[in-house]
Parts: sequence; structure tokens; C-alpha cells
Amino acid sequence: MKKNFSSQNLWKRATRVIPGGNGLLSKRPDRYLPKHWPTYFSSCNGVEVTDLEGNKFIDMAQMAVGSAILGYSNVDLVKAVNKASENGVNCTLNSPEEVYLAEKLLELNPFAGGVKFAKTGAEAMSIAIRIARAYSKKDKVAFSGYHGWSDWYMATNLAREDNLNNHLLPGLSTQGVPKGLKDTVVPFIYNSVSDFKKVIKENPDVGIICIEGARFEYPSKGFLQAIMEISRKKNIVIVSDEITSGWRVTDGGVYKVNGFKPDIVVYGKGLGGGYAISAVLGKSKIMEEAKNTFISSTMFTERIGFVAALKTIEIICENKVWEHLIKIGSIIGDAWLDLAKKYSLNLTINEFKPLISFKLNYEDKTNLINTIFIQEMLKRGYIASNSIYVSYAHNEKIINQYFLMVDQVFELISRAIDNNKLHELIETQERSDAFGRLTK
Amino acid sequence: MKKNFSSQNLWKRATRVIPGGNGLLSKRPDRYLPKHWPTYFSSCNGVEVTDLEGNKFIDMAQMAVGSAILGYSNVDLVKAVNKASENGVNCTLNSPEEVYLAEKLLELNPFAGGVKFAKTGAEAMSIAIRIARAYSKKDKVAFSGYHGWSDWYMATNLAREDNLNNHLLPGLSTQGVPKGLKDTVVPFIYNSVSDFKKVIKENPDVGIICIEGARFEYPSKGFLQAIMEISRKKNIVIVSDEITSGWRVTDGGVYKVNGFKPDIVVYGKGLGGGYAISAVLGKSKIMEEAKNTFISSTMFTERIGFVAALKTIEIICENKVWEHLIKIGSIIGDAWLDLAKKYSLNLTINEFKPLISFKLNYEDKTNLINTIFIQEMLKRGYIASNSIYVSYAHNEKIINQYFLMVDQVFELISRAIDNNKLHELIETQERSDAFGRLTK
Repeated sequence: MKKNFSSQNLWKRATRVIPGGNGLLSKRPDRYLPKHWPTYFSSCNGVEVTDLEGNKFIDMAQMAVGSAILGYSNVDLVKAVNKASENGVNCTLNSPEEVYLAEKLLELNPFAGGVKFAKTGAEAMSIAIRIARAYSKKDKVAFSGYHGWSDWYMATNLAREDNLNNHLLPGLSTQGVPKGLKDTVVPFIYNSVSDFKKVIKENPDVGIICIEGARFEYPSKGFLQAIMEISRKKNIVIVSDEITSGWRVTDGGVYKVNGFKPDIVVYGKGLGGGYAISAVLGKSKIMEEAKNTFISSTMFTERIGFVAALKTIEIICENKVWEHLIKIGSIIGDAWLDLAKKYSLNLTINEFKPLISFKLNYEDKTNLINTIFIQEMLKRGYIASNSIYVSYAHNEKIINQYFLMVDQVFELISRAIDNNKLHELIETQERSDAFGRLTK
Repeated sequence: MKKNFSSQNLWKRATRVIPGGNGLLSKRPDRYLPKHWPTYFSSCNGVEVTDLEGNKFIDMAQMAVGSAILGYSNVDLVKAVNKASENGVNCTLNSPEEVYLAEKLLELNPFAGGVKFAKTGAEAMSIAIRIARAYSKKDKVAFSGYHGWSDWYMATNLAREDNLNNHLLPGLSTQGVPKGLKDTVVPFIYNSVSDFKKVIKENPDVGIICIEGARFEYPSKGFLQAIMEISRKKNIVIVSDEITSGWRVTDGGVYKVNGFKPDIVVYGKGLGGGYAISAVLGKSKIMEEAKNTFISSTMFTERIGFVAALKTIEIICENKVWEHLIKIGSIIGDAWLDLAKKYSLNLTINEFKPLISFKLNYEDKTNLINTIFIQEMLKRGYIASNSIYVSYAHNEKIINQYFLMVDQVFELISRAIDNNKLHELIETQERSDAFGRLTK
């Protein structure tokens, strides 16, 4: 294992001054390889990450949790941002790029007539819900999937602690979420028409429905049809959260190719190519409500996000980046399956290719095996996990190199499974379950 | 009046695609000079702003609503940020600067033992309230002043539409704020010990008290004493919102010099010198609650904010920038008073010098006079209003030049008042009242 004392020490310092150690669960080292994860970067370029000791790794995992959609430090993107930075990013006057970006987003999302910007995905979702509530005159939201840390969403667990169990973050604690929000939000199971209909029947006061554009699987046609039919009938506002899925299979949201007709679409992550920017787009009559409620923040008008998003969208559209992401994701998925077959591993892959992911199906040993996979790939120079946000900087050459290593590691794991010697392979603790720390 | 067709046209386009035209009320042109305000900048440097036509103005007003505390495009700050931008701003691994900044903030705020970061002020305030609620196990917040657009704050107007009348934004609409939040937040009058005590007596379930570090006036000793005494007795969490006041009179919050002892302090705006970053600091035992509730966002971990804040704080501390801001603010205030005396204008100034402000006391003519002031100063090359966020880039030479123009404009206004000819001076509509658009 490569040395990374600096990172380990810095993480210890971090946990003393920042509760949880950082600002994002998905970047915590215990989620990957406790005590051995590089944890901090000094620089990153393309798909290469350099840690504090100068060790270099290829990122076949999170790519900044999907925000580095063009790859790290894309030359044209950095150039555009740094020029804006030199010319001033925050002024008493407004950035013209705010308007250009709004116009560009409306051009690419013709259903929409208005845009509001924020910096983080969660804040954009809060804006979307505020506007949707203002329009529908109803407070209750029915949702599926993950939509951020804000009160409106976390309130779901006020009713029943297992309310999020079928969603991305089961058992999230509701500490500090005001109890008055109880019964303002209710979850339904993704892709389950029957559960969705049951929830709507049991909650006739729902005014907003919120789903993810896609995460690991696409929404089914029937599921989307049911949502659209009931929304039309009951005048419910549909919010499509495309923060994770956006820009990965189209020049905008997944909704553009699966016949879904949301009233509001939310983008984040990839939108700024790694720089902080998020956007709420909606039909004119709905977005007009933003004038009747107070949504305003100094940092919403900071220039870097607008400039970064304009350049990122330009690069995405000119190069049809989404086609590249789908293609590379498909190649990765197929190659995992091939190698799994070669070594008789029970492995399945997901449907949404730009966020390609495998599942090793070994019940209570699965997490241990995943940890070993991360450990062995790290030794071989890869920041790897069982899911990959494909970026525009990934290419077939990189993939081929990666699979030479995956071949070795799958063989190792396969033998250890056969000989019941998995525990001899692991050199640290198992990675922590995704959100286990937060479950009760 | 200088030509600014490009800006006027762009603003028209903006209002068609962005409800309200932009992301921040304080940057809307109607708040300054309808139809003549430059509205958009192409670049800004020091205290100079260049609009889309290439016209240059000196900013004697908002300085990016206080966020450009070092002046625009500070060379050292831009250099630090652009280097980080080249090296990658968002990665699967963490930015070491997140830890360095947390450590620096704790060093400067020794009462605190933990820090959480966000991008906007409003989001940091939401984090502060979440953590304070989690710790106090109570939902109800008593507050004074302005604390952002979020539901927790806007909920105050659910109880009575005039609840914010004594605060910065009277009559904010509650459209889209869930009604379950009614009675979770209650306002008290700034610097009124009796009103504060009355509110606490009537609301024995208050668990959090939230005030601004300062805005136009400092909090009185008695007011702060009352807050601290009652909080100690009732185990209430005190949040000091130093988003506007922070870094302007100390190397941190106003609380450091007036004997106030908050449990949580929130910084934003000036913290990043214009780049988006905000921070929540609190006592260890309180911040530990952040581990028991879910607060997590991809963009919270974006690197530019950390790097910008580290460099901004370094420059502020090395140069004792706050002393400069107080000195320049005092000079401006005194010079306004002198000129007002010279031209027999009824003018008063405020107490908090780094955000120096004058009031022309002419009842229903005040807004008209303010508009004329803005108009005439703009003709003379100044972005001016009746309040100025002083920056490190303002200096006595700039101030002297500015007052040559203020002298002319005060004379003009004084004559027009005497001759009852104010209406002949104005070449456009009156500026809109601060938040009138949002009042019912």
C-alpha cells in the first residue's frame, strides 16, 4: 500500500474541527478504505488524481460525485472560469452571464419559461419545492429517491423512521427538523405504480410529486405514465430532480428521451463541470410564483457558476458528451460482466450507463468483497469502487488499462471466495455501510 | 446620462427568463435608478466597475453587497483562486483547504470547537438552525433582523403578516412556506430589552435566539446582557448571524468586541472576498449534533470557497483591514454630515461605520431625493446610494474625489428642496422601495 501519512493525519485533524470530517458523506474515507484511503488531493487533471504525497491515481469511481462530467481541470473550462475570476466575480452590478445561461437553459429545455439559480443541489431543490408549493397552494410533497439534506425532505422521517428505507438514504435522523413539518412529505417506491397510486390515494392533499430523472435504473414507462396521469387529473406539480442524471444521456435531463413531462426540472452537479452552480427551470406560469415569494441570496449571483455552466454546456453540446458517457459506461459494464463470468463471480450491473455500477451478490460478505476490491485497486493505482461516474475524460485506452487490473483483482477475490479466505485479504476495516452512521 | 442600451436590453431579456430578473433583490436596477442603472458589469477592479458599454464608474455603494470586502479582483486573492482552479476544484478526494480553513476559523474564534461550511449565507443559517434545534430539542426560534430566504425564517410571517415590520424586510410574502411551520419562529425588536423579554415570556418554548452581529447600529450592552442572561437561565442556544457584520470591525465577528457570547456564529459575504463560501461555527458540544443529523452537499466541498476564504482572512488579518474600513467609514460619515450642514440638509448617519449610511429625513420626499442623489452621482461617474459597504480598496484619495461630486449634488438637491422643484430634477421614475414589491 502506498504511504499516505499526510492524508491520514489531515483527516484526523479534520474530524477534530469539522463534525463528520467534511461537508459531504460521499467523500468520507471510511466509505472507501478506512485508514488507507488517500482522502485528500493536491491536484487532479483529466482522470488523474494526485494526493498530498504526490502519489498518482486514476479515478474510476466518483469523479467528484459526478460533478466533474468533463473530467478534471478541463483546459477550456478552467480558462473561461479564470478569465471571469480575473475580471471580477461579484459586483454591485449583475453578471451578464446569468442571463445568457438562463436563455441557454430555456433553449435546451423548451417546456420551461423561467429559471432560478443557486449554488448547491439541495438549495435548488428547496427553491423548486418553495415555488411548487406557492403555485399548487398545497404543502404536501410525494416523492421517490434522494433530494438533499433540507428540512422539506428530511421531514419524511418525522412520520416513520423507516420512511426512507426504500430510498437512497435509509434511516436518516430527523434531529433538528421541526416537528410541524410532519406529514408534509410522503415517500413512494421508485418504479412501483401500485405503491405510487396507494400513496396518492391515501394522501389526497398532495400538491407536488418529486422524482429523480434516473439514478441506477431508468424510471419505467408505466411509472411515468401513472405520475403524469394523476398529476394532470389532480393539478399536481411534477418536479424532476436531474441533479445526478442531468447532462448524462441528453443535452439536459433524462426526461427529454423517456416521454416524461415534468413541470419543474432541477440541475446541479455536472451543470458546472465541478464549479458550484445549480438551476431550477419550470413552466412560465409556475415560475412566475417566484415573484410572489422571497428567494434571494448574494451568492446566487456570483459569476463563476454561470461562466462555468455556460462553458460546460457548450462543450457537452458540441461534442455530444452524453453519447461518450453512455458508450464508455456500456463498455465498462460489459467488461465487468465478462470478467465476472471468467472468474465465476455473481455480479450484476445497472441500467443507467453513465453512472455504471456493479453489485456483487454475496449477502453479508458483499461489503467485505467491495472493500477488498477498493483496496486491491488502490494498490494498483486506482481510485475505484463498485460504481463509476463516467466522464468525458475517460476513454477506451484508460478503460483497457483499468480492466487489466480488474482482471487481477477479480481473480484474487474469486479464489478467496472459493477458499473461504476473504478475511485474509483485507488489510484494514471494512468500509462503512453507505449511510449506516446516520441510522439509529 | 451615459448611454447604456446594452444593459437596458439585457435586463429586459433577463426579466423574460428569470422571474424577478436576477438572483438577488439588492442587485435589481429598480432599487437604484429605473431605466438608467448600468445593471451589468463586464469587469471590476479595486473600486472601479466597467459596464457593458465600457463606461467606468467608481463604486461608492454596495461593493457586491459587502462581499467584495478587499475591493474587486484583489490580485493576491485572484492568484490564489485561479491556481486552485487550474489544479482542480472538485474531486473524488477532499480539498485539504477545507481543514486549514476550519482550523483558521477556530483559531480566530476560540469559543468554537467545530465548523460546517456551505456556499450561501442563507444555507449556512439553515445549517445553524438545524444544529441548534437538534441540540436544544426545541423547534422555536426567537430572532431579530434579517436571516435569509429559507423556510425557517420566512415562517415568521405565517403567524402575522406584519411580523417582519420592524425588521429589514417588512411584509415578505409567505407563499410556498409550509403552514406547519406556523409558530416555530417569532420576532423581537432589535435593541429593545422590553420587547425581547415580552417575547420570551410569551413563548416559553423558545430554544434558539438569533440576532445579527450588527447591521446599521450596534446592539446595546443591555440588549446583549438580557439575551445572555435569559439564554443561560433557560438553556437557549444563541446564534449570532455575522454574515453582514463579520470581518468589518474585528478579525471575525462583532461579538468579539462587545462582550457578547454566542453559541454559534455564522459568516458569509466578506468571508470569501466575493467568492461563494459561508461557515457555521459553534461550541463543540453543540456542533457535535451535526453528526446526528444529515447535512451534506456535493458543492459544500468545492475548493474555490475554501481557498478564497483562507486568502481573504490572511489579507484581512495581516493588514487589519477592519481598522481601515472603520476609519474610511467614519471619514465618509463625517463628510456627509459636514456637507449636509453646508447645504442645510436634514441628514443623519448610522453607527456601524464599515457599512456607513445616511438618512435624508424628508418624509414622503425622501425616496425621491435618494433617487435624485443616485441619478446625479451616476452622471458624475459614481455608482452611489445612501449606504456604502466600505472595502479595503477605498482610500482617502477616492473619498476626496467622491465628495467633490457629493458637494455638487447636495447643493443641487438643497436648492430644489428650497424651491420645491425636486420633480424637475428627476429624469426617470423613483427607485422602488426596498422590498415594496414583495409587500401585499
